[in-house]
Amino acid sequence: MKFNNRNVSISKKAKIGKNVRIGDNTTIYDHVEIGDNSIICNDCVIGEPLNAYYSDENYINPVTKIGENAIIRSHCIIYAGSEFGINFVSGHRVTIRENVKVGTNFSIGTLSDIQGYVTIGDYCRFHSNVHIGQQSTIGNFVFIYPYVVFTNDPHPPSNVCIGPTIGDYTQIAVHSVILPGVVIGKNSLVGVNSTVNKNFGDEQVIVGSPAKVFCSIRDIESKEKAGTKHYPWMYNFERGMPWEGIGFDEWKVSEGQGN
Amino acid sequence: MKFNNRNVSISKKAKIGKNVRIGDNTTIYDHVEIGDNSIICNDCVIGEPLNAYYSDENYINPVTKIGENAIIRSHCIIYAGSEFGINFVSGHRVTIRENVKVGTNFSIGTLSDIQGYVTIGDYCRFHSNVHIGQQSTIGNFVFIYPYVVFTNDPHPPSNVCIGPTIGDYTQIAVHSVILPGVVIGKNSLVGVNSTVNKNFGDEQVIVGSPAKVFCSIRDIESKEKAGTKHYPWMYNFERGMPWEGIGFDEWKVSEGQGN
Amino acid sequence: MKFNNRNVSISKKAKIGKNVRIGDNTTIYDHVEIGDNSIICNDCVIGEPLNAYYSDENYINPVTKIGENAIIRSHCIIYAGSEFGINFVSGHRVTIRENVKVGTNFSIGTLSDIQGYVTIGDYCRFHSNVHIGQQSTIGNFVFIYPYVVFTNDPHPPSNVCIGPTIGDYTQIAVHSVILPGVVIGKNSLVGVNSTVNKNFGDEQVIVGSPAKVFCSIRDIESKEKAGTKHYPWMYNFERGMPWEGIGFDEWKVSEGQGN
Repeated sequence: MKFNNRNVSISKKAKIGKNVRIGDNTTIYDHVEIGDNSIICNDCVIGEPLNAYYSDENYINPVTKIGENAIIRSHCIIYAGSEFGINFVSGHRVTIRENVKVGTNFSIGTLSDIQGYVTIGDYCRFHSNVHIGQQSTIGNFVFIYPYVVFTNDPHPPSNVCIGPTIGDYTQIAVHSVILPGVVIGKNSLVGVNSTVNKNFGDEQVIVGSPAKVFCSIRDIESKEKAGTKHYPWMYNFERGMPWEGIGFDEWKVSEGQGN
Repeated sequence: MKFNNRNVSISKKAKIGKNVRIGDNTTIYDHVEIGDNSIICNDCVIGEPLNAYYSDENYINPVTKIGENAIIRSHCIIYAGSEFGINFVSGHRVTIRENVKVGTNFSIGTLSDIQGYVTIGDYCRFHSNVHIGQQSTIGNFVFIYPYVVFTNDPHPPSNVCIGPTIGDYTQIAVHSVILPGVVIGKNSLVGVNSTVNKNFGDEQVIVGSPAKVFCSIRDIESKEKAGTKHYPWMYNFERGMPWEGIGFDEWKVSEGQGN
Repeated sequence: MKFNNRNVSISKKAKIGKNVRIGDNTTIYDHVEIGDNSIICNDCVIGEPLNAYYSDENYINPVTKIGENAIIRSHCIIYAGSEFGINFVSGHRVTIRENVKVGTNFSIGTLSDIQGYVTIGDYCRFHSNVHIGQQSTIGNFVFIYPYVVFTNDPHPPSNVCIGPTIGDYTQIAVHSVILPGVVIGKNSLVGVNSTVNKNFGDEQVIVGSPAKVFCSIRDIESKEKAGTKHYPWMYNFERGMPWEGIGFDEWKVSEGQGN
């Protein structure tokens, strides 16, 4: 049904891997590199030229790298100058601007918007309609839920741009706002509809506007297995994670991360 | 101006009713059925193949049904396997995934996102930028306002998926979040920017984070008619409702619903 | 790379200025007027016909005006009957409905949605994913940040439609909701995640749900220059403003606005 080569435009300066499928109405600009076995669905724009393109006759599009085994769903716009590791998966209508550097196994949901100049680790999952401001730094295994906003201007409008920094394994629930420059540690949980305006450490449940420590993540009972605790979540959630089938502890050992 | 048959792709396995107009750049995939007198505007995708399509050579697209008299505005994506009753109206850039079963006279605004596996009654209205997670159940005459999010994972990330359930006539105001498994009764009103983390009954005004009962809906003065009450709203709002012109009480009698 | 005249559709009844570039897959409908030196990127729809078009055989598309030097990024939808002054800049996937009257130097971010019948002054900046309901009135130099919603129905659903009114220089931070009919004065600052349900005057910092006065804007220390105050912001932010290079006071004098 898809992939009829209808109204497709691929730059001669793009490098397309083996066994790549490209959907109808999709445009791929100069210096895009797409890894083997990837799927770029219909109506996408990959390697969108930067602003300088409109005014600079000598403009050269920066390199855009999409790793192997990507699946980019329809109507996504990915700017030139961003890079994604293997197994990148997107929903629809995602917008990702320039200089976004993403690790492996990243997934990002429909309508999400990454504003550029952002670093994201491995195995992160952003759900639908997440907004990440410039200069944000996000660790590994960080999951961000719908309508979360990362901001970067402490006194709007100012000339300061300082994004949040989020530690590995931390979860940020729907409709929360992370204020400029805020640092959140590892394995914390930001509750729904919170406004996080100061730094927080590891393994904390953070809730409210302004957000405060509510409890330790280790206090939360599982809803799946009565009498057990849900967090750290890596002991209770494996789908798509590198410890799937072997368990988190064994994976850590295999990674040489010890305990 | 529209409907020039430019860059339109319609599967031979789709069934298109009488007097249906299909906009430029629109794609209609296998086993889509579109009712008579419908309008599918430009740049839409109807019957988007499910994930299995990309890996299964024998994939067969499930049936997608759009009832009569639909108007689907431009840039919408509707997955295969969803069904809509008559008089469906959408804004732009709506995304609706698979196994969404919707009654008659549904309207949904620009940028809204229904994640699949959702049941919606008759005469519901979702405004712009509403996000409905999987496994949600929504009654009849439920109106949902912009930036509302329905969630389904009680301890993210977990393997539990349990959506909210909303009773008939209930209104959910802008920027509210309904937490997993929450049940809200009939004819209630969730105030702006609320976080609803437990169940509520009928005819309650629910406000805050976490949400609490603020008053009965019957306590709210009308801003249109001094000295009268606005809720239940069906006595004061008729536009597009089946009781338009005859009043809610007479309509109920005609429906055999008594008092 | 862009502007290959691929799958472009321009009405013969449109007026296109000198040195205008129009992207691939873009449609421009009847009675659109585009000023000189403008750039309309790919996949845009300019002059989208109003609802009456679908049912009225004698429908005539209202005039849509885009001033000189516009840059409208890809996938935007602008309805017929809206007007924009010079130097209009948009992100991607912006939706602007009919009867929106905008001054000069307007910028609006990706995914923002203006619902029609809205008045906006000069030098306003709306960031990504802003939602402006009908009948809103916005002054000059008003900046609105992501996920802000302007509402207009005091008791949903009702037949009342009364939008907010925002004074010059006021800033509205991310995830705030402005309730119907609310009037906010000049040079105020609405904090993150606020719900503004009553009127506020000039130079106030407004925070919370419901929002209350937190302090004067003149109490806020600068994060850029220790020991100084950041607001009124016009003394500390010039980028793209008409006082860039000369300072706010000198600009005011040049405008005849005195002190």
